[in-house]
Amino acid sequence: MGRAALALPSGIGDGMMRIGTLGIVGVGLIGGSIGLAARERGIAQRVIGIGRQTSSLQQALDLGLITEFTTDLVAGGSQADLTVFCTPVDLIGPQVRQLAPHLKPGTILTDAGSTKERIVQAVEGILPQGVAFIGSHPLAGSHRRGPDAAKADLFCNRLTILTPTPTSDPHALATLTEFWQALGSRVQLLDAATHDRALGTTSHLPHAVASALASVLPEAWQPLTATGFRDTTRLAAADPTLWTAIFRENQDAVRDALDRFEAALATFRQLLAHDDADALHQWLTNAKQVRDALGS
Amino acid sequence: MGRAALALPSGIGDGMMRIGTLGIVGVGLIGGSIGLAARERGIAQRVIGIGRQTSSLQQALDLGLITEFTTDLVAGGSQADLTVFCTPVDLIGPQVRQLAPHLKPGTILTDAGSTKERIVQAVEGILPQGVAFIGSHPLAGSHRRGPDAAKADLFCNRLTILTPTPTSDPHALATLTEFWQALGSRVQLLDAATHDRALGTTSHLPHAVASALASVLPEAWQPLTATGFRDTTRLAAADPTLWTAIFRENQDAVRDALDRFEAALATFRQLLAHDDADALHQWLTNAKQVRDALGS
Repeated sequence: MGRAALALPSGIGDGMMRIGTLGIVGVGLIGGSIGLAARERGIAQRVIGIGRQTSSLQQALDLGLITEFTTDLVAGGSQADLTVFCTPVDLIGPQVRQLAPHLKPGTILTDAGSTKERIVQAVEGILPQGVAFIGSHPLAGSHRRGPDAAKADLFCNRLTILTPTPTSDPHALATLTEFWQALGSRVQLLDAATHDRALGTTSHLPHAVASALASVLPEAWQPLTATGFRDTTRLAAADPTLWTAIFRENQDAVRDALDRFEAALATFRQLLAHDDADALHQWLTNAKQVRDALGS
Repeated sequence: MGRAALALPSGIGDGMMRIGTLGIVGVGLIGGSIGLAARERGIAQRVIGIGRQTSSLQQALDLGLITEFTTDLVAGGSQADLTVFCTPVDLIGPQVRQLAPHLKPGTILTDAGSTKERIVQAVEGILPQGVAFIGSHPLAGSHRRGPDAAKADLFCNRLTILTPTPTSDPHALATLTEFWQALGSRVQLLDAATHDRALGTTSHLPHAVASALASVLPEAWQPLTATGFRDTTRLAAADPTLWTAIFRENQDAVRDALDRFEAALATFRQLLAHDDADALHQWLTNAKQVRDALGS
């Protein structure tokens, strides 16, 4: 084990990416999909699933997402060359701090959390010499959860954002870049603060909006919903525990995004009150242009 | 022509529904799908498409959605036993009023508009003896538009709301019920005011929310969106002209729905400001329960 086992390929994206032993902390939709894709693509022969619930880990093993499992973070994580934390964002920092002292030089850590700045800050300066952590956020997911929702192609043609700091190890950054690319993802680098500000608008705000919209639907009107209401509220079905943590970790950016969203709604309300057909049409047209640019 | 040609079937939903000549005013997604479904299901042999643009009507004819077309509302509508107005909601009332004096007793009119109260009011009392209008709203649609988006199964397993008034002709109501059922739809009766209030929340509010959300996305962050943002904003791609008319026709209900939605967002914002994890989790859980009840 150690750095030699990582077998850094000669060229990025040449399909030769190999991890000796891959650790996955939290084997749900994201963690399970990483394990499955890594096994199917020959990136890792050995994939240790690390979690709290034996029943869930056994299910992940049965589904072929991992090759072995343990409920002991240190026992599992200390054997891995690369460990990905796929736990709720408020647990990642503490778990990295718990595992770090037991790691050998050359070990690389990353995560799959939807927020980055607090996690990167929590980890910074506490890692042993030769151990690297660089934050990752694969923009892939689903309102579905659990190992049985895992898919080997979850990351294909999706974007994974890596958030290195100025002191991040370039070797670890290259390895992680190749790792996500080998899983099928595109990779973009972004500083953690910019990531959180952007995702506050592109991901966390839509979640809050979807939940608020679902919450105002009286039960009597449920039969009068169609695909439009269902699409717009789909995110409200996500896991409340995961999302409570995400909103709390990224409060400032979420509040800023809410400010801008509520200002847009106030404009709409004003155009409606003035019965201003031309301005209302223009407002809807501007929004349509943004949406059309995103594709289906 | 006339009532006899309507050949009212003996039992509702027995698949024997026949319309002599079906008129469709506005042959886009909805109108085109009605024509295609009526032809494929043997409900109407003759389907007259009525519109303004010859090129679009010719396309509908080429696609088999209609069997003939005209740009003259009176010339086309006066030949039909049943005419469905699939034009923007602000045009339906005036078009019905323009056509009505030219209709023979036994003719039935309906529409497919997303608002009902103003349309029903505009039509009430102006119809010749023996001519019936009852509002319809098929809760089926798409952000796609135009004849090439038409699908024969657009109404299958969807709900169509009919909004008869106390003076509506029971024969026309029975015929329209069977007509929508023959197209594959379920049918529910609702008074027009209740329809508009409910749809203000279940359909019009999500459109406003989706557009407001799309409008606050900076161009630089477009690449950082994923399926969540795209789902939540999908409705923003809809036709601004159609939706300007819908919002204006249903201002009061939309404003009421906005009031409740903004109050929900204010609650979320407060829980976030107080960093109240338990209450935030509960708020998200309540929304999730509503969303889960709607199915995928």
